[in-house]
Amino acid sequence: MIRTATLDEPEHGLTQDVLDATDVLLWWGHAAHDKVDDAVVARVRQRVWDGMGLLVMHSGHMSKIFRELNGTSGKLHWREVGELERVWCVDPAHPIAAGVPEHFDIPYEEMYGEPFMIAGDAHVIFMSWFEGGEVFRSGFTLQRGFGRMFYFRPGHEAFPTFRHPEVLKVLANGIRWLRPVIDMPFSKTHRPDPLSPIAPKDFKVHNVGIVNP
Amino acid sequence: MIRTATLDEPEHGLTQDVLDATDVLLWWGHAAHDKVDDAVVARVRQRVWDGMGLLVMHSGHMSKIFRELNGTSGKLHWREVGELERVWCVDPAHPIAAGVPEHFDIPYEEMYGEPFMIAGDAHVIFMSWFEGGEVFRSGFTLQRGFGRMFYFRPGHEAFPTFRHPEVLKVLANGIRWLRPVIDMPFSKTHRPDPLSPIAPKDFKVHNVGIVNP
Amino acid sequence: MIRTATLDEPEHGLTQDVLDATDVLLWWGHAAHDKVDDAVVARVRQRVWDGMGLLVMHSGHMSKIFRELNGTSGKLHWREVGELERVWCVDPAHPIAAGVPEHFDIPYEEMYGEPFMIAGDAHVIFMSWFEGGEVFRSGFTLQRGFGRMFYFRPGHEAFPTFRHPEVLKVLANGIRWLRPVIDMPFSKTHRPDPLSPIAPKDFKVHNVGIVNP
Amino acid sequence: MIRTATLDEPEHGLTQDVLDATDVLLWWGHAAHDKVDDAVVARVRQRVWDGMGLLVMHSGHMSKIFRELNGTSGKLHWREVGELERVWCVDPAHPIAAGVPEHFDIPYEEMYGEPFMIAGDAHVIFMSWFEGGEVFRSGFTLQRGFGRMFYFRPGHEAFPTFRHPEVLKVLANGIRWLRPVIDMPFSKTHRPDPLSPIAPKDFKVHNVGIVNP
Repeated sequence: MIRTATLDEPEHGLTQDVLDATDVLLWWGHAAHDKVDDAVVARVRQRVWDGMGLLVMHSGHMSKIFRELNGTSGKLHWREVGELERVWCVDPAHPIAAGVPEHFDIPYEEMYGEPFMIAGDAHVIFMSWFEGGEVFRSGFTLQRGFGRMFYFRPGHEAFPTFRHPEVLKVLANGIRWLRPVIDMPFSKTHRPDPLSPIAPKDFKVHNVGIVNP
Repeated sequence: MIRTATLDEPEHGLTQDVLDATDVLLWWGHAAHDKVDDAVVARVRQRVWDGMGLLVMHSGHMSKIFRELNGTSGKLHWREVGELERVWCVDPAHPIAAGVPEHFDIPYEEMYGEPFMIAGDAHVIFMSWFEGGEVFRSGFTLQRGFGRMFYFRPGHEAFPTFRHPEVLKVLANGIRWLRPVIDMPFSKTHRPDPLSPIAPKDFKVHNVGIVNP
Repeated sequence: MIRTATLDEPEHGLTQDVLDATDVLLWWGHAAHDKVDDAVVARVRQRVWDGMGLLVMHSGHMSKIFRELNGTSGKLHWREVGELERVWCVDPAHPIAAGVPEHFDIPYEEMYGEPFMIAGDAHVIFMSWFEGGEVFRSGFTLQRGFGRMFYFRPGHEAFPTFRHPEVLKVLANGIRWLRPVIDMPFSKTHRPDPLSPIAPKDFKVHNVGIVNP
Repeated sequence: MIRTATLDEPEHGLTQDVLDATDVLLWWGHAAHDKVDDAVVARVRQRVWDGMGLLVMHSGHMSKIFRELNGTSGKLHWREVGELERVWCVDPAHPIAAGVPEHFDIPYEEMYGEPFMIAGDAHVIFMSWFEGGEVFRSGFTLQRGFGRMFYFRPGHEAFPTFRHPEVLKVLANGIRWLRPVIDMPFSKTHRPDPLSPIAPKDFKVHNVGIVNP
């Protein structure tokens, strides 16, 4: 089942009930990132930690959720003249690349250029070449907690990118790959009894001050 | 020069001026993580992205700044009975391990146990064995933007851990390694002119609606 | 279908035909690593690069194939007194951890201790605690070319480790996860024609000597 | 002190004595990779594991040493027409990028294209854009054992690339960064006595056959 949720809805349509029933969330945003409520972002982030998949598209690189999962600013350089983007697959063995050719062209796109401020464990699957002279890590995955994220760059609102067959294939593969492997909260942080014997110590824990054995 | 900053000070003592003059910030916190102001946390995070080093100690794994740089919950399991912790060095070639033996013992410490919810690019330098039966990734580094973070686990407030010579050596090495390599903001996100010629396209960018070439 | 192949067979039973028909290869070896023929190792390595899964067990950490895929020596420290090994799962969301509890005990095992000389992209799923005081990264995955490797530590020949239900579960999960995603040689290294126009240059390529434009 | 060593010398000029006295080794090779003696390659690899730095240039991606340290085939696609290469810096905070601009152009170079078969822990510092339409991970580091490797792509023998000021700056930075942090063999694999007490077990280790407790 596919639902939509928009900024204008109460809680942006992302209530706890909706999120709890969501396996994979697709996120597209552009000019209104700072209008997204922090509490909703925290809720989405918790769901990713619990196992929900998250697919962030295009300008979503500046969304709060993208930045908080990367731990970075998400910044990059950009140009909006409608130039050729050629997408290269650098990890053909990844399930998200299944059936995708070595490269494919998107005739008109916005340019995003490096350096792209993302986490060091970004597993890069796609890299883009732009007609005007830049390169970009256009598709990468992250794991955060029990959940996975996939970022895919193409998708400017002024071009028919989301009708491009290879783009659609990547997104479909991404959604399939993002389905939760496990979907449950981190086991309640507990104070386990020792599993192995602990030798007697010559002090008392929990006295005031620093122990001076 | 060494300064201190505490929760009770205005802006927790971490004003923009103080942070701008800081190369490496050490962070220790325990029960009051949620009393730390979000605006101050955002300011510290920005300084890390610009190049400042950050050394997070012990219970700082639940601080807002640790969680936001990892993109994870920072959760773990724990036990506070004052048991033996043996710290193993798993990357002897790292500058933070310089002069540190293959392993060293801390006779009384709090236990932290796996799974530890941290980022996938955590470069693990130290791993701990606990008398009661657990293991833990006790020392690791991250890069976020232009800055570096080092997390080091030992340091419970009830024990004289910060007088342990090997612990002090690791912290000193950490501070040295965390000094900024470069320290400047990410170049203003710009819209560069094309570096290479872009062929004429048969549409106008910036018309309303999706281009249908 | 399951086959076996042993050192004493011609080509150790790992002919090109057998390997071509193999999805996942399990490797156990101990005292005779240097008796394994280099040509056979190169053949196995090529099959991993083409997509075959490889599960290396226990003392296989010193096999030629393990060392060549890691690019490291595979060294570690060890003790053979039959002590308790407690295996902790540090990535419960990984398919290889499916159904495996937070930790399980193997009552008698050989000890392997850190530092373990493995590749930096080892994705660690299991870590072990040993009764005598050591820790170890006991289960990790690597990708090399189109294929995947999984290393799992337990399995000393003097103990009934391979009858332990959790060990068997991990191995079964590992085999399932190692099945090839794609299984084909890297596309013949080709000299593609330019995809985008290359401006005329004022020199001739392939003259003798360094071009001095 | 700088020395040279060539294929035609005995042991290719890389005797044990020479290597033991080497902090950083630069490797350039092209057509004769398979003429390099396996024993010499094993010796170089061991020195990297012990701490020696290794800088591999251009077509060295198909050298035995590059492939053995990556654990991969080192393959890529290529074209030799003398086209523009634009090198982008994607990690400006890395010491190897010190003083290097956001991008620089090499007017005539051979093209190398993705997918580039390298290890997953390649830390990418430079990425290249080629006039004919390809992208490439042109500069990356690896750690193997106690030593570091840096690969840098530019350097085709038919062009004056090694006179390009930015290329020379990258190489100089690389050499500086590759100097050993520690330089010693991995501690002799030992059989340590237990550090913590091991409970008596009800079997004898080293009997013939599998213990059946």
